[in-house]
Amino acid sequence: MRIDVLSLFPGMFALMRESIIGKTIDKGLVDFNVVDFRDYTTNKHNKVDDEIYGGGQGMLLMPQPIFDAIEAVETDAGSRGRVILMDPAGERFTQAKAEEFAKEEHLTFIAGHYEGYDERIRELVTDEVSIGDFVLTGGELGAMTVIDATVRLLEDALGDDMSAVDDSFSTGLLEYPQYTRPAEFRGLKVPEVLTSGNHAKIAEWKQKEALRRTYQRRPDLLDTYEFTPEAQRLLREVKAEENN
Amino acid sequence: MRIDVLSLFPGMFALMRESIIGKTIDKGLVDFNVVDFRDYTTNKHNKVDDEIYGGGQGMLLMPQPIFDAIEAVETDAGSRGRVILMDPAGERFTQAKAEEFAKEEHLTFIAGHYEGYDERIRELVTDEVSIGDFVLTGGELGAMTVIDATVRLLEDALGDDMSAVDDSFSTGLLEYPQYTRPAEFRGLKVPEVLTSGNHAKIAEWKQKEALRRTYQRRPDLLDTYEFTPEAQRLLREVKAEENN
Repeated sequence: MRIDVLSLFPGMFALMRESIIGKTIDKGLVDFNVVDFRDYTTNKHNKVDDEIYGGGQGMLLMPQPIFDAIEAVETDAGSRGRVILMDPAGERFTQAKAEEFAKEEHLTFIAGHYEGYDERIRELVTDEVSIGDFVLTGGELGAMTVIDATVRLLEDALGDDMSAVDDSFSTGLLEYPQYTRPAEFRGLKVPEVLTSGNHAKIAEWKQKEALRRTYQRRPDLLDTYEFTPEAQRLLREVKAEENN
Repeated sequence: MRIDVLSLFPGMFALMRESIIGKTIDKGLVDFNVVDFRDYTTNKHNKVDDEIYGGGQGMLLMPQPIFDAIEAVETDAGSRGRVILMDPAGERFTQAKAEEFAKEEHLTFIAGHYEGYDERIRELVTDEVSIGDFVLTGGELGAMTVIDATVRLLEDALGDDMSAVDDSFSTGLLEYPQYTRPAEFRGLKVPEVLTSGNHAKIAEWKQKEALRRTYQRRPDLLDTYEFTPEAQRLLREVKAEENN
């Protein structure tokens, strides 16, 4: 997979070398490029922004440098791929979207900083994506978040120890409480069932506690969960216990 | 405000120096510390994780290093402040939560990597926070996202040009389309009204287009929007135009 990021702060992406993206680059799974679109300005002061027509606080990213930077990516890569604009008004990023992006050959991200985009930049874009209903100083952290969630799904990206199969959201339930050594820490004990060696009991406990946590925190996930009769029974028990 | 982050990859937070957090540190608004909790291990191999009781893929972060690191922060700062665990099962982070955190004196983040947390770590925690329904390789990007959204709300964090007042979500609507120079770029023109100099018409256009974008993309936001009679009228026009 090739990933290009258009950003005015290319240095911020250096951290990606320390994370999963660094490993996937080393393994040859990802060709990762960060483009400072200030390099593509044609005005003499290398200005990337200008005042807003009709008035308004702040400045706006001009179309020219971003159009030219995207075209340079296209010339170099032979395609633009999906062009993803990080924008609070975009579609909410989800695990399903990460799975969709992970199937692509080429992703190009546009990440602004502080400012809005000239509307005409959207002509370049195939996807407008938001990571949530909050305001950030720039699109960089959003782009990194989307890249991290996407790249970890690539075949061979994660070692065997860190398989992507067993996580929250992939089972449709939140994760049950988990414990490691020591069996007692500052008076806090691991539930006895987990050290009992009784595999059937342990499996039932895990399923029940995953249902409990989901019921407590994210009951909306239960609306789409595919229940077995066993899971139905365990959820009834959870509800009886919790509403007591 | 004091911010501590417990992480196994302190180098990832170096990028924060390039962003808003760097400016707020320079202005003396934020005292920012990253703690490698591996430094607090008491076992001879500086192990921070161990196998999961009852079986399960991967490893789990042990309670001891994190308990001790939090206590070291408490000793140094005189308080733990809000202790925020980045976790996919946590409460969804929103702008309202950023505003709440921005009022605190001290925030301490716990960011794991790859692995889950021993359940007993939650004993330390005042807030469990998730930035969305997607799986990341670690809590670092989530912690940075929460910090960025929070710190930019601190008084004097943003320059006058980048005031936090005018953004998406703070008005309750998505932003209307915005344009900057040139008035025509590759045949794409700025809407005439915006260059007309007619302030009343411009104001009406902005309000109507903000309503249109919100209606198209995030109709849920209209449920809680406080409509003026003028906004009601403009929304009726938008609906008539869009459903034609």
